[in-house]
Amino acid sequence: MNTSENLPLDEQFVIGVDYGTLSGRAVVVRVSDGTELGNGVFEYPHAVVTESLPGSSQRLPADWALQVPNDYRDVLRNAVPAAVANAGINPANVVGIATDFTACTMVPTTADGTPLNELERFANRPHAFVKLWRHHAAQPQADRINQLAEDRGESWLPRYGGLISSEWEFAKGLQLLEEDPEVYAAMEHWVEAADWIVWQLCGSYVRNACTAGYKGIYQDGQYPSEDFLEALNPDFKDFVSAKLEHTIGRLGDAAGFLTEEAAGWTGLPAGIAVAVGNVDAHVSAPAANAVEPGQLVAIMGTSTCHVMNGDVLREVPGMCGVVDGGIVDGLWGYEAGQSGVGDIFGWFTKNGVPPEYHQAAAEKGLGIHGYLTELAEKQAIGEHGLIALDWHSGNRSVLVDHELSGVVVGQTLATKPEDTYRALLEATAFGTRTIVDAFRDSGVPVKEFIVAGGLLKNKFLMQVYADITGLQLSTIGSEQGPALGSAIHAAVAGGKYKDIREAAASMAAAPGSVYTPIPENVAAYEVLFQEYKELHDYFGRGANNVMHRLKAIQRAAIQGSATQDTANQTNTLEGANA
Amino acid sequence: MNTSENLPLDEQFVIGVDYGTLSGRAVVVRVSDGTELGNGVFEYPHAVVTESLPGSSQRLPADWALQVPNDYRDVLRNAVPAAVANAGINPANVVGIATDFTACTMVPTTADGTPLNELERFANRPHAFVKLWRHHAAQPQADRINQLAEDRGESWLPRYGGLISSEWEFAKGLQLLEEDPEVYAAMEHWVEAADWIVWQLCGSYVRNACTAGYKGIYQDGQYPSEDFLEALNPDFKDFVSAKLEHTIGRLGDAAGFLTEEAAGWTGLPAGIAVAVGNVDAHVSAPAANAVEPGQLVAIMGTSTCHVMNGDVLREVPGMCGVVDGGIVDGLWGYEAGQSGVGDIFGWFTKNGVPPEYHQAAAEKGLGIHGYLTELAEKQAIGEHGLIALDWHSGNRSVLVDHELSGVVVGQTLATKPEDTYRALLEATAFGTRTIVDAFRDSGVPVKEFIVAGGLLKNKFLMQVYADITGLQLSTIGSEQGPALGSAIHAAVAGGKYKDIREAAASMAAAPGSVYTPIPENVAAYEVLFQEYKELHDYFGRGANNVMHRLKAIQRAAIQGSATQDTANQTNTLEGANA
Repeated sequence: MNTSENLPLDEQFVIGVDYGTLSGRAVVVRVSDGTELGNGVFEYPHAVVTESLPGSSQRLPADWALQVPNDYRDVLRNAVPAAVANAGINPANVVGIATDFTACTMVPTTADGTPLNELERFANRPHAFVKLWRHHAAQPQADRINQLAEDRGESWLPRYGGLISSEWEFAKGLQLLEEDPEVYAAMEHWVEAADWIVWQLCGSYVRNACTAGYKGIYQDGQYPSEDFLEALNPDFKDFVSAKLEHTIGRLGDAAGFLTEEAAGWTGLPAGIAVAVGNVDAHVSAPAANAVEPGQLVAIMGTSTCHVMNGDVLREVPGMCGVVDGGIVDGLWGYEAGQSGVGDIFGWFTKNGVPPEYHQAAAEKGLGIHGYLTELAEKQAIGEHGLIALDWHSGNRSVLVDHELSGVVVGQTLATKPEDTYRALLEATAFGTRTIVDAFRDSGVPVKEFIVAGGLLKNKFLMQVYADITGLQLSTIGSEQGPALGSAIHAAVAGGKYKDIREAAASMAAAPGSVYTPIPENVAAYEVLFQEYKELHDYFGRGANNVMHRLKAIQRAAIQGSATQDTANQTNTLEGANA
Repeated sequence: MNTSENLPLDEQFVIGVDYGTLSGRAVVVRVSDGTELGNGVFEYPHAVVTESLPGSSQRLPADWALQVPNDYRDVLRNAVPAAVANAGINPANVVGIATDFTACTMVPTTADGTPLNELERFANRPHAFVKLWRHHAAQPQADRINQLAEDRGESWLPRYGGLISSEWEFAKGLQLLEEDPEVYAAMEHWVEAADWIVWQLCGSYVRNACTAGYKGIYQDGQYPSEDFLEALNPDFKDFVSAKLEHTIGRLGDAAGFLTEEAAGWTGLPAGIAVAVGNVDAHVSAPAANAVEPGQLVAIMGTSTCHVMNGDVLREVPGMCGVVDGGIVDGLWGYEAGQSGVGDIFGWFTKNGVPPEYHQAAAEKGLGIHGYLTELAEKQAIGEHGLIALDWHSGNRSVLVDHELSGVVVGQTLATKPEDTYRALLEATAFGTRTIVDAFRDSGVPVKEFIVAGGLLKNKFLMQVYADITGLQLSTIGSEQGPALGSAIHAAVAGGKYKDIREAAASMAAAPGSVYTPIPENVAAYEVLFQEYKELHDYFGRGANNVMHRLKAIQRAAIQGSATQDTANQTNTLEGANA
């Protein structure tokens, strides 16, 4: 037992670490009232690996998205000490640490948790790396899972809106088996990164109840049956028992205690509580003190995750899942999501904005997002003449289809970058509106819309969301919603509060800004939303499966040109030998 | 009579001047064999006016595209002397000049040919300026013309593929009447720019047979009837007799002789022959010596115009027109077109390419088009995963609808600028393929595909066109196809050859490169073309009129915010006065 345990609560601190898509962010929080005292960020050196493995020139197929697990350890080594230093506290007074992670992000490991890419023999094997949530290359496997589950009438299927995503544990695992059986055979655990990082901290592997339910198809105490798995692929029969199944920990419980090694990385006292892993979105609800039915929390960053508690179980078409106690005990936790939000804006600013705009932004001392927003917000609604579909990273809800892709309709020779930028902002809001409508139509109406995550800083975007959803929108009064949510879990894991609700009541962030829908904007956007909806259904519900076909053509083209490259290489070698 | 008339033909020269969308280009050509000896270019100082009139901040409505007529005179003052100097010839040896112009580009003038915008009282009236071919704001008028003509079964309608374009003389004239009756009343002639520039050169107004037929609905010796015009709008009843009708000159005839004033501008001898005006596309066929049936000449620049002679009269849906002797005597001249081609590529490079690309292009000593092409041509067909519709400037053939707009389907977070660039190149080739198919299906098959215009320099683009149309493609062996074609007309007007065919036989450019379709590319593109076609018909043939609605919403939004601005301004003034 750490001596700091005897200090008053306002001299005890917890650490929350939020693992995002591109970086990890640590925050130091006072146990007594949730005050954030300091933070630190560390950007993953390898970011997202989509083109080729580090140190290799071999091109990855389309839709792959990998990460390098040691980047996650580097966050512990860098962001945590930075946060402690920034807070100016004595690290000896830290009494717990908790983490949240992107999901479903999967690490294939040995029995002791070593990621397979860290074994020399697998260092050049793409399937030995982490499959990031937005690795979308397992869609064919997801399609088979869905078809089979529907044919067999599997009882768990409706809990996921009728569709299992290619982003989740089973589709990704099946892809691994079928494309690299050797790596699959060597894999002893197929671990959520959310749990892997906890394993690194405390030395023990505990599966968290949240991802087990939402991503691992764990419902009513059971995974999909061996029968089912065998019908998918005979070699997949023991996937659950051999690779997946493990002790499940409840949210807010301690998974274990900080090891000496992890204490060395972080500078924190060995032996403090390490909370069970969790998901970035789900930890944010307590941070916003939004744990009552009908309070929708949208964590808006590179992607958006929507979480909401409900007091009834309903089957909402195209949602990501409903899990008993998936957010807090005693309520049904609903989850929906949009695969691309900030990622789309970022992609656009990186790939689609000309030099003069970057220069003008710099001259005004603005970032490129700030500059484009400033131009875009001057426009009347509909002035740009565009409608976009926000599917550049596929569609998570309500279509659950990662073979979908982005569309912009209406460009002319007069279309300017700020026009397209604004159309993309609006498209993501239309995507949110589609989700809100699906909840309402299924009998779990959204009463309040609370935004956490990096995008809440864009006031114009927030007003667009309020106007398009027609809901009053409030933002969480913390820029570190998920990290604060993790810190709340750390406090519970460390025994400082009875449960998450009690901790949230003391530690949640103060409410931030409130955005009220402007009636004439609501009316103007309603017209555009009808256009969005028509295109949404045309491209997304089978009237024209052009997006699916384009992806198939693309894969074949890349495959063909890779084969061609190899053939050319062979020819060259033969030529050299001749 | 000029003394140079006595010189041998190989010491006599003619000048061809090609008026494009952004600049005018003059070329000096030897009469005996068509050798191009020198050229000069002048960019219009006001380029295309789409945002606000020169010196004014008042915003033009959407889809307007104006020009300033004095820019055209400046071409005579600058590009012609530059070409003569560049050729190193004695200007006294020039025996004729001819011009070709974009069409349908319209100048409202007084009785003596003064453009109305040059009258002080109309200097701030948008309708007093030149309406460029791609002024697309007269679509409502075009719609009414088409509906009425169809209802009344007007015999001229099928000659234009069943649709009169918003780009042409009647729709633009009706818009002028209805939106600015005062300017309309002051207008004594509604003049094709092609004829206006000839008027400037020789002091007499002659309507050329080409635009009268293609753009002026002049068929079988008649314009649309007063009955018809009155039914459109009572005040439009005498449009033909009061504003349009005038002497019609045959192509290759002299309209008159160079005035002293124009001799002063150009440095050429007064009294030399000035040919009847013509259109950039149509003059290019003789320059390519492509004057036989089935030889399609595509003049590919900012837009593409397709001209082809046929020995039979057929009604081709969605073509721009068929005119007896519209290209050369004795054959039916067919015309089709694509409103946006190079303009779309230019729009994309200006608005959608990030700084690193411009920098990398500069480092390689390439223009941005060259750099993007270099990246794009490395890809396998379909590798970018995109399909675009090339309607950023509307669709001229085969849909004849300038309320259509651009689309890109299939963008993902991995989409790079060269992907979209290549998809846009391909989209324009799919557009050409659609036109070639329409000719074939109507019984006037395309046998040969000859390209003139600035885009022939892009070898990759040419191969894409060959692969997508499946036709052998040859390019004209001159970079100044239209200017050379004009020079050929100048030689005929000057009496140096009996007719255009004879002059073309001596003076046409040597054939340039030949591109043969590559069978596996043809097959790969065929698959993508089917996707293009499905989207083409969905967005273009009424299944989803979203593009029309977006344009209507856009117009209302701009109108509303202009009203709002005015209201705010009024408020501010009132505030200041209070």
